[in-house]
Amino acid sequence: MTGYTLSDSVAAQQLADDAWSTRAGAAIPEYGVPSSFEKSASRTLSNPKGEPRTQHARTPHHLLNGTFTPNGLHFVISHSGAPDIDPAKHRLVIHGLVKKPLAFTLDALGRYPTVSRMAFVECGGNSAPLFSNEPVQATAQALHGLVSCAEWTGVMLSTLLEEAGIDPKAKWLIAEGADSLALSRSVPVAKALDDAMIALYQNGERLMPGNGYPMRLLLPGWEGNMNVKWLRRIQLTEMPGMSYYETRTYAPILPNGKAYQFYFLQEVKSFITHPSPGLTLKGPGFYEVSGIAYSASGRIAKVMVTADGGKTWAQAALQEPVLSKAFTRFRVPWRWDGGPAILQSRAWDEAGNVQPTRAEVIAQRGTTRAAVTNAAAFPSQHYNGPTSWAIERTGEVKHVYA
Amino acid sequence: MTGYTLSDSVAAQQLADDAWSTRAGAAIPEYGVPSSFEKSASRTLSNPKGEPRTQHARTPHHLLNGTFTPNGLHFVISHSGAPDIDPAKHRLVIHGLVKKPLAFTLDALGRYPTVSRMAFVECGGNSAPLFSNEPVQATAQALHGLVSCAEWTGVMLSTLLEEAGIDPKAKWLIAEGADSLALSRSVPVAKALDDAMIALYQNGERLMPGNGYPMRLLLPGWEGNMNVKWLRRIQLTEMPGMSYYETRTYAPILPNGKAYQFYFLQEVKSFITHPSPGLTLKGPGFYEVSGIAYSASGRIAKVMVTADGGKTWAQAALQEPVLSKAFTRFRVPWRWDGGPAILQSRAWDEAGNVQPTRAEVIAQRGTTRAAVTNAAAFPSQHYNGPTSWAIERTGEVKHVYA
Repeated sequence: MTGYTLSDSVAAQQLADDAWSTRAGAAIPEYGVPSSFEKSASRTLSNPKGEPRTQHARTPHHLLNGTFTPNGLHFVISHSGAPDIDPAKHRLVIHGLVKKPLAFTLDALGRYPTVSRMAFVECGGNSAPLFSNEPVQATAQALHGLVSCAEWTGVMLSTLLEEAGIDPKAKWLIAEGADSLALSRSVPVAKALDDAMIALYQNGERLMPGNGYPMRLLLPGWEGNMNVKWLRRIQLTEMPGMSYYETRTYAPILPNGKAYQFYFLQEVKSFITHPSPGLTLKGPGFYEVSGIAYSASGRIAKVMVTADGGKTWAQAALQEPVLSKAFTRFRVPWRWDGGPAILQSRAWDEAGNVQPTRAEVIAQRGTTRAAVTNAAAFPSQHYNGPTSWAIERTGEVKHVYA
Repeated sequence: MTGYTLSDSVAAQQLADDAWSTRAGAAIPEYGVPSSFEKSASRTLSNPKGEPRTQHARTPHHLLNGTFTPNGLHFVISHSGAPDIDPAKHRLVIHGLVKKPLAFTLDALGRYPTVSRMAFVECGGNSAPLFSNEPVQATAQALHGLVSCAEWTGVMLSTLLEEAGIDPKAKWLIAEGADSLALSRSVPVAKALDDAMIALYQNGERLMPGNGYPMRLLLPGWEGNMNVKWLRRIQLTEMPGMSYYETRTYAPILPNGKAYQFYFLQEVKSFITHPSPGLTLKGPGFYEVSGIAYSASGRIAKVMVTADGGKTWAQAALQEPVLSKAFTRFRVPWRWDGGPAILQSRAWDEAGNVQPTRAEVIAQRGTTRAAVTNAAAFPSQHYNGPTSWAIERTGEVKHVYA
């Protein structure tokens, strides 16, 4: 006997028949969607009518489990909506400092050698509410919903660049989307030749419209905005393009007076999803504490979890396989005694990096602000400190700084 | 230069702007679905109106890539539709030969230790058209669409059985669904204690309605029908229940006169998805040949691919990580000379099993039939022989026996 005691002893044979067990069920559709009872497991939208400004759709991490994000719930940020691209007409062009400029149809790309890999994509502004002076009372979705993880399948960018022939003078490439904004970001050629991919499939099917259909640039572990969606052109250049997003949005001035520019890594980070705000504990006893860890610097090596605000720590189990630059689900058993508790996780990656404390992140990178939940209001970027959840006697979970 | 020569040399700067690049795109929805240009990447339905008979929804393997199946496109077979279960009211009961019968709410199950694992689920009747006397001209979806693969997250059944306390007399369990059919199958206790799971999440989100929402039995690698969906009761027994599906549908009489009963493994198998019928080759040159391999006996060890009907073979690359009882994507480069070719794959698993020839499968297990595409018309089960695709000079792909 494990002593979980979370179940009721019953005379099972007397289980009543509910209505759904007494009549035929629904027809199976051509494309399945979740049960109508799962309406809350949806993305929260910052601009549901698609008005002419940025849209955020956040992943409901507190209602998910496992090691990646289903396509319907992958986070999206779009600055000019999702273009409705006809894949037969779309072209990807590689030009600039190359021996031979090339244009690829989607069909042609599908003939090249492909690879599949799990990779997280995270907005540089994810978790920005943690820069606020007071802990924002919100769910893991509202605080950390701008990171997701999927299996991406496509063609390594190095394969295409080899075919085009890189001029040795080229040190950067400028990736440009086919959205009406023509969003562009500059990427060092070294990253392009390392693990950059032209992603054609997301979790087995074609990319979702909001995630770049029919193709996007995937830069595993690097700032989400650089993973240019609806990818249309790649220009090889000597210098970066100094585009809007690299010189303004993702280049805040740091406390030391320098701009936080051309710093691309989404550094090692973790947060607890279960329990978390919105999930009320139903009395003392056994609970599994679980969450997500990831790093742009490779595999997660270790996650420690505390239930007493940092006095004592337990090492969490990591769900195998632990993959580089992908979500790692961590889990640790916990018996709640019904008293106040503070849960927090801290992750290490295989490169030896560890999540900094919140004070360290703020001292190095940010300025604190009044409590608001809209990430766009926070110029501070790249929060990768811890998140603390206080368990109250009622079983409610609150966001605290600890 | 790799010499793929699949692209056009262009003056890229002159790329025209399509309409979607000149106006704002669509609003991002709460739950994302594929582009309207991907309508063909949907499940084919054998009973689209949900009439009172079995429904099949088949996975479009020829339009997918990667290592698992997105939730919208996971195959479904339901004999009485998808029940619309209220998760707050649903109970899982474990009873029969146990020390203490137990009832679990979904919330209670969510507090137990959970695990995540990739696992394929395959109908015993998948690929049944390959028993026909003449090769059925159909897509990989029509021939092999009753197998899919997903990451399942839930509670190990062994954890719950330990809590209930198994009476040593118990050798089987009878798993029963909450569908109006109360579909039930008998499972040896040894499998239940090995790797059986009460699955609560599919690819990160709650199970799809057609795949057993809010919970199903997952028996990695075993006959799909045994992975009881909408799981409601598990009764521990001395003997199997001799239910309809184990004594009729999945117990065909073999050529040797014995019933093919209580044989559960979905044995080592592979098929090529790219190219395959419906995907016409656009002229000679480089193509990637890729497909799916899987086995109930563990990891895939090797996949060999021929392009000349078996005269010569090349070893395919296996996409890492290669996981036990899950899809393994294999890939091999191929240069089509424009002449007739016959593609076929053959897989080995880590237990040393190899795909038998078609003749061996039929001699051992089946009887051939006239060519029809409806699996229900084929009493023969568990086809795991090879599938051969002939490439015609036009680039069309046909199903042949070779």
